[in-house]
Amino acid sequence: MARNGALDFILHGDEKILSPLLASRPDLATCTRIQHSPDVVRMDDKPSQVMRRGKNTSMWSALSSVRDGEAQAAVSCGNTGALMAVAMLRLRKLTGVTRPAIACLWPSRGESGYNTLLDVGADVRADEESLLQYALMGAAYYRNAFDAPLPRVGLLNVGTEDHKGRAEIKEAAQLIAEAASLGRYEYVGFVEGSDFASAHVDVIVTDGFTGNIALKTGEGTAKLIADTLREEFTANLTSKIGALASTAPLQRLKKRMDPRRMNGGVFLGLNGTVVKSHGSADATGVSAAIKLAFRLAQSGFQDRMAERLASVAETVQERVLSTKDPREAASDIKSDAQVGET
Amino acid sequence: MARNGALDFILHGDEKILSPLLASRPDLATCTRIQHSPDVVRMDDKPSQVMRRGKNTSMWSALSSVRDGEAQAAVSCGNTGALMAVAMLRLRKLTGVTRPAIACLWPSRGESGYNTLLDVGADVRADEESLLQYALMGAAYYRNAFDAPLPRVGLLNVGTEDHKGRAEIKEAAQLIAEAASLGRYEYVGFVEGSDFASAHVDVIVTDGFTGNIALKTGEGTAKLIADTLREEFTANLTSKIGALASTAPLQRLKKRMDPRRMNGGVFLGLNGTVVKSHGSADATGVSAAIKLAFRLAQSGFQDRMAERLASVAETVQERVLSTKDPREAASDIKSDAQVGET
Repeated sequence: MARNGALDFILHGDEKILSPLLASRPDLATCTRIQHSPDVVRMDDKPSQVMRRGKNTSMWSALSSVRDGEAQAAVSCGNTGALMAVAMLRLRKLTGVTRPAIACLWPSRGESGYNTLLDVGADVRADEESLLQYALMGAAYYRNAFDAPLPRVGLLNVGTEDHKGRAEIKEAAQLIAEAASLGRYEYVGFVEGSDFASAHVDVIVTDGFTGNIALKTGEGTAKLIADTLREEFTANLTSKIGALASTAPLQRLKKRMDPRRMNGGVFLGLNGTVVKSHGSADATGVSAAIKLAFRLAQSGFQDRMAERLASVAETVQERVLSTKDPREAASDIKSDAQVGET
Repeated sequence: MARNGALDFILHGDEKILSPLLASRPDLATCTRIQHSPDVVRMDDKPSQVMRRGKNTSMWSALSSVRDGEAQAAVSCGNTGALMAVAMLRLRKLTGVTRPAIACLWPSRGESGYNTLLDVGADVRADEESLLQYALMGAAYYRNAFDAPLPRVGLLNVGTEDHKGRAEIKEAAQLIAEAASLGRYEYVGFVEGSDFASAHVDVIVTDGFTGNIALKTGEGTAKLIADTLREEFTANLTSKIGALASTAPLQRLKKRMDPRRMNGGVFLGLNGTVVKSHGSADATGVSAAIKLAFRLAQSGFQDRMAERLASVAETVQERVLSTKDPREAASDIKSDAQVGET
């Protein structure tokens, strides 16, 4: 990886393990400081346990460094649920945000080459108000990441006709349409699973359960095709010659569809930038996640998004909240405490 | 398509349109009878409208021919929601089934080459009891379609750890595990979106919203890769030579991953066999759907599934229903009336 001179690292973890590793990479050592933390969050730790007993973990330490202004962004390959839970605890939610979301990039046929999908796993449920917030946050993210003045927002559904889908999705459609000019996006209506790569939408909004399943389904399908392609090209000598002759186009395909280049789920709706890398990411993948964190930290979009959310929250959500059953509001607060359990 | 001598067709629709078409295909004309129906269901018709005013449509006529025993199975390329609604009205649900489901095939790394996913769109919600019924119906379908004595059933979730997912999914996991020996399947626990092609599961159970999004996401991803592959292989002369040299492996890839070979969503949980073909299916796709309908009609699995569902319903659902809040039961009945609206 070519060194970015504007980039410094704080490496959180066990000093005894990290020091020798860092010593073997003098190019990195000059711009990296180790922040010792004795414990680690394991992949099977429950978020609630980490919130209670995780103060000495590297994850906690990394998020605290963002909170204290030492770091401008945190990057982690760890347990997603725990990362979201500790991030909410340490960084706090932005004003106007009920539930933070995780946004990921998806290869698209559009100009930027990417669409954004959110939520992909911060919360297993989303009501109409949360879906509206995802639309606002997703549009802000896309606008800043791709210099797109008016991102096109679509709401994921099982069909594009008005009568289709769950009740909260129909209500969200109305809220998202109404908030379009305030949120500085264009609302393109319902989109389907087949539209993830579409050139006619930039930001696809859904709940974290559906988004997570869709993300992994897409990755799994791409992997199945890649594996099948490899099998077919090594099936016999003629195939191998074919593979040799088609090295260049296959390499370009691989590069265009490389999931490592899209590595990095961005946590939206917090006072601070957190990027979650895939747990199994290699050097290329982690590098992509770090680049994304750097770009976001530099763009200052966090502040602009905070302002916009606060102003939209006032105008739109007032109406939603005022029409809500008080019992529902109480259950919102209760379930809020479980955010990040996925 | 090679003629299957055991196959006869009843073609439902406008005689004036169908007669000349059939006359031009003497091979088909000998085994096909036209059943005149003046109206058609349009793709944007609401299921509820079709249920009230659809008596003269070809869809209604086709399902009536199954109900009256004239046909052993119905195949339709039409409006899915309307087809399910009219199928429920004309064929009625099996004893023990609250909500029918639509099952589709997915290319897999397993022995049979296919996994089954359900529900892919009959209903946008599913409670724990419906998910149990999907497990029972999916296992029965897979067992008969692939001669698998003990299908492995997995429940779709955002992670494989016990604490993950929505409440109804955790409850469904318990019900499905308990009913395994009665339902003659093996329960393998939670599976993720990345497991759709896995060799370690045969039947993947989820609600119709998530299943529909996943199905279309998989199809969309495969199409994006196919399009990108085509672009790269026609980018320049060298690429074109590479494409020529690799014709055989690319053709084999295409055949193995051809979505048309997997065409045909099977409606499970009704007194009769109904196969829904993709609306945009070509001759190969429709042929696959007809073959599937023929195989299912011949296997007699419908009767065996009906028996099994009734017996499991007695033992397992008694317990579920007895612990249910009466208000919930009332809302079940209410929402039941909207089944098929997707």
